[in-house]
Amino acid sequence: MGRLIVQKYGGTSVGSPERILGVAQRVKGYVEKGDKVVVVVSAMSGETNRLVALGEEIWGPQFNHRELDVLYSSGEQVSIALVSLALEKVGVTAKSFLADQIPLRTNGEFGKARIVEIESKSLKEAIADGIVPVVAGFQGVTADGLITTLGRGGSDTSAVAVAAALDADECEICTDVDGVYTADPRIIKKANRLDQITFEEMLELASLGSKVLHPRSVELAGRHKVPLRVVSTFEGGQGTLISFDGDDMEGAVVSGIAHAADEAKITIEGVADIPGVASKIISPVSAANIDVDMIVQNTSADGLTDFTFTVKRPDFDEALALLGTVSEEIGARKVSGDPQISKVSVVGVGMRSHAGVASRVFEALAKEGINIQMISTSEIKISVVVDEKYTELAVRSLHEEFNL
Amino acid sequence: MGRLIVQKYGGTSVGSPERILGVAQRVKGYVEKGDKVVVVVSAMSGETNRLVALGEEIWGPQFNHRELDVLYSSGEQVSIALVSLALEKVGVTAKSFLADQIPLRTNGEFGKARIVEIESKSLKEAIADGIVPVVAGFQGVTADGLITTLGRGGSDTSAVAVAAALDADECEICTDVDGVYTADPRIIKKANRLDQITFEEMLELASLGSKVLHPRSVELAGRHKVPLRVVSTFEGGQGTLISFDGDDMEGAVVSGIAHAADEAKITIEGVADIPGVASKIISPVSAANIDVDMIVQNTSADGLTDFTFTVKRPDFDEALALLGTVSEEIGARKVSGDPQISKVSVVGVGMRSHAGVASRVFEALAKEGINIQMISTSEIKISVVVDEKYTELAVRSLHEEFNL
Repeated sequence: MGRLIVQKYGGTSVGSPERILGVAQRVKGYVEKGDKVVVVVSAMSGETNRLVALGEEIWGPQFNHRELDVLYSSGEQVSIALVSLALEKVGVTAKSFLADQIPLRTNGEFGKARIVEIESKSLKEAIADGIVPVVAGFQGVTADGLITTLGRGGSDTSAVAVAAALDADECEICTDVDGVYTADPRIIKKANRLDQITFEEMLELASLGSKVLHPRSVELAGRHKVPLRVVSTFEGGQGTLISFDGDDMEGAVVSGIAHAADEAKITIEGVADIPGVASKIISPVSAANIDVDMIVQNTSADGLTDFTFTVKRPDFDEALALLGTVSEEIGARKVSGDPQISKVSVVGVGMRSHAGVASRVFEALAKEGINIQMISTSEIKISVVVDEKYTELAVRSLHEEFNL
Repeated sequence: MGRLIVQKYGGTSVGSPERILGVAQRVKGYVEKGDKVVVVVSAMSGETNRLVALGEEIWGPQFNHRELDVLYSSGEQVSIALVSLALEKVGVTAKSFLADQIPLRTNGEFGKARIVEIESKSLKEAIADGIVPVVAGFQGVTADGLITTLGRGGSDTSAVAVAAALDADECEICTDVDGVYTADPRIIKKANRLDQITFEEMLELASLGSKVLHPRSVELAGRHKVPLRVVSTFEGGQGTLISFDGDDMEGAVVSGIAHAADEAKITIEGVADIPGVASKIISPVSAANIDVDMIVQNTSADGLTDFTFTVKRPDFDEALALLGTVSEEIGARKVSGDPQISKVSVVGVGMRSHAGVASRVFEALAKEGINIQMISTSEIKISVVVDEKYTELAVRSLHEEFNL
């Protein structure tokens, strides 16, 4: 009995005609084993940048125009055509599907649309006919027939959503790394590939800068119980399975170290500690479409408190300017910021039942003379903000501390 | 009272962000005068070649796969997005339309689909709302929702079809030349731009190698009585109006000299002059998707005749090979060919009522020592095939002979 597998190929995997033919051979291998395969593809690497540059020359650096989605989505259209041709070239019957040909419906938030519904009939019919559907990732269509794009991590999200709609046995994210590691292998030579990891852990790792999977797709997979596997497109191997059960991880307190280096922090000091202040501070930032990551507010002394949050570095200047205005409105004492920070996180399901992980983190960093600027914790992770220059040292010392 | 004008911009006109902004300014000029405008665009110059090359690397040199149409049509998607953005940038409300968003229905002949129907409701609603629709040329959609492309000259054809469906007052073909000339201005420095020309004449000129308009679009405009104007995108001026009435041309016997240089001829000699032979000769050629242009068969002597036709030079080898097989089947004496010929034509509505044009053509060529290899005539044109090296000399001498 063959399984139904959704395979998502990213920009690097379809980056040239040669690689696309490689992808076709890989898919053929599954089909020959008796599996049913649905392929979801991104734009060829470099293509989205080219389209963004074209749009910017005309429209400027704003990213929120309906027609920009029409522009960007053309990149995936090229990929589905080429991948379908490559599949037919190697003898696999294939058919491309644009979002509106499925249809994959989203709301009308251009540039960052959210999937509302996938009508699975057309895909199911193709599969039943022995055809490999090749679906354009990253794009959707509104109820009015307008093209949308899903924003960052869009193709991963498309793949998981298609897998959920088809009740697939597995969703493979085929990429240029061969799985999820205990830390970034470019920094930690001894980092190990994990055979398995839980959704909660993967979610933390994804949010925290492990670039393997976009957190949104991991969330979606978790919600719809889609088994997710990160696997190398060209090197083979079993990759890393993201599973629903934390039991397999018993005993492993810390499963990985993640880091995000292109961060910046902004602090607003001397804020009255009264209800509604936090919202006044964060609202204009999120209204400007700036993603806010960590938010830390300490207990107040004499009715005044300090409020700090982190943003992606490219958003730093804009966020700082916005906070200047807010600061006057709410009568804060001062706004300051630092664009040269990074965030390092220790992640592990086991952590919630193990005291002492936090103190080991702090000790390990102290031993290297690394000052901790901010701390934030959840049930399965501890994140610290440090000066950017200590990023690698911090990751390395924590990797060693927890014997990963 | 504003008019309704469909404007088609070719690949050169939308070849860069700068030019696209120029197109937007041009459209804005019309809108400010009170005209309603519908824009039809081609892919940016170079884009189609890039996509064809990508497809060829995977699929090889065949041009007849459904997915190739998905690939090629992405070029126009980029253009409609950029032109819409540019229009909005200069303050004109615009909205892009892919073929399936109109929809513009075609049959299912991928790579050379023919338009079946345009549902004009969506475009009319946009126009009524004061929006400039920006339509993707060259593409269509089948009743099953599959993407098609219209083949050569596709965007011109799209524009004329849209103009016909909307009952537009005029269809402007905005291009990199400022009108239709009495001969190719690159050969004849003294060639004159025509203010007006009839459909019949334009059709002959278009078919015969004047690259300004694709004959298919001229045919369609003639059939639906769409006034067509060839005009420069960037230089201004009134261009050339292609009209329905030959009366304006009274007195002008010959309106232009056209030439097609990349031609080849194939002759099959000693064919039995019996019914069905011509079909046996031409059928396999057209089945191979080779366009046959001139066909000449002389009256037979002793029951045997010679049959000659011309094809585009790139098709010469294939056509010659096909004829070799046919020749054996029908017991012909010999097949021969010449890939170094060109066709020069004298076109003019007045010609049908004026004897003597043919003899002036033949004399003018004889005076220059140019041997005529084939002759073919219609009511409004005389075409001759000559050795390719005489092309320019023939055009020049005929241009002079008829004082154009």
